[in-house]
Formats: sequence, C-alpha cells, structure tokens
Amino acid sequence: MRKYSQACPIARTLDLIGDRWTLIIVRDLFMGASKFGDFRRSSPGVPPKVLSARLKFLMQGGFVGREIYSDHPLRAAYHLTEKGRSLLPIVLAIGQWGLEHEFENEPESQRTIAASIAARIPESRPILRKGGFI
Amino acid sequence: MRKYSQACPIARTLDLIGDRWTLIIVRDLFMGASKFGDFRRSSPGVPPKVLSARLKFLMQGGFVGREIYSDHPLRAAYHLTEKGRSLLPIVLAIGQWGLEHEFENEPESQRTIAASIAARIPESRPILRKGGFI
Repeated sequence: MRKYSQACPIARTLDLIGDRWTLIIVRDLFMGASKFGDFRRSSPGVPPKVLSARLKFLMQGGFVGREIYSDHPLRAAYHLTEKGRSLLPIVLAIGQWGLEHEFENEPESQRTIAASIAARIPESRPILRKGGFI
Repeated sequence: MRKYSQACPIARTLDLIGDRWTLIIVRDLFMGASKFGDFRRSSPGVPPKVLSARLKFLMQGGFVGREIYSDHPLRAAYHLTEKGRSLLPIVLAIGQWGLEHEFENEPESQRTIAASIAARIPESRPILRKGGFI
C-alpha cells in the first residue's frame, strides 16, 4: 500500500483506509457481511486478490478480526473490531453526503437505501432522521 | 477514473472523491491552498500530472472553480465551490479520527495541527473543542 507519509491526521487516516475498495469493504462489514462470498456478492467488481489483500491490511491495522469456521476447506468469518467500529462517523459522513447529493433524482432508491442502513446500523438513525431520509 | 458503479451512496461519493490524492487536495483547498505551487508544497509526493488530473476531475464534478490570474505564463487559482465546501463533514470526520487515533504518542503535534485546522477552518472548532484538541 502506498502511503502519503504526511504528518497530517487526514493523510494518516487515508494511509490506513484510503486504498481503493477498503471503505467499500468496511461498509459491507457494517452492513453485516462476514464471509468472503458476502463481500463478493456485494461488490462483484472487486478482484478476489484485492479483496483478500484489503481484508489482510484491515486485520493488520486492527480494524478487522477473523474466525476460522471451517478447516477443510479453509473458511473464515470477518468482523469489525472496536477500532473498526470507530470508523463509523467517517462511513456515515460519506454515506450522508451521497444520499443528499447523488440520489436527488432517485427518491425511491434514496428511501430504500436509507431504510436498509437504518435497519443494519442502529447508530445511523439519528443522522438519517435529521436528514429526512427516514 | 475507475468507478465502483454501485447504487450505494458511499460508492457513488467515492466515485467522485475516492481516488488517491483527491481528498488530500480537497484538504489543502480547505486549508487555503489555491495555486498549483501551493498544492505541490503541501504534498511534494503528488506527481504534477496526477495533481492536474485531480483538479480537473474536481472541477468537472463541480467541487472546484478556477480563475486564470496570469495569461503569460498561464497561471490559475483554484477554490472550493459551495458543492466543494459541502464535503467538509467528510474531511472533518477523517481528520478527527486521525487526530484521535494516530497522534496518541505525539501530543505536541496533535495540539499544533488542531490549532492550525481551527485557525483555517472556523467550522471545525466545535468538533475540535468537543474532542479536547483545542
């Protein structure tokens, strides 16, 4: 992973979660994804090698934990650690901006998506209510 | 710019601002950078071609405006539009996370950086005060 290597809180955070696909994977973890296939279904565009590398990097950073639930074949389930869950304000700020600015002509999708976020991430409800999305 | 092409507010937002260097440039604009040289001084690591491409993409997205202030040689000054300024909650959420988690062993830097953000971005002050950074 290429680093910005700047003594700046934004650059240091992006050094950890700014790579392509990383925040999409974090989003999926918040929305309940845990198995490799869950991430693949949610984001068919992510190359398996990239998905694997991103999950590994998130584990190294302490954002994600893993349990092996089958030895033959080897299968793992991933989850956000407490540190991983501390990324929620970032994920919600990005999601809120997108709901406000990128779904103006799709009110139906906007409502469906907001409802789905509210159902999976209870902490998002005050923000979604304030924005008038739910 | 590669797109995620997902009907998700997070993916759509990252399609616009998720490329490497983009949020660093947006940060610099919030902190007062306007000329090409300002961005280069703040981020010596960004290749000029990439900086140029990112500024162009941000202008196409309506986040950044530009004025030509010299014709020979051609020189431009860049600024955030109202749409660009609407990214502040995202930038602040990322910065706040970094201040909290990536400067734990550098309290002096943490204080200096927080003071500099507070001076340049008045809207950040309530968040910085709440976090105990200023």
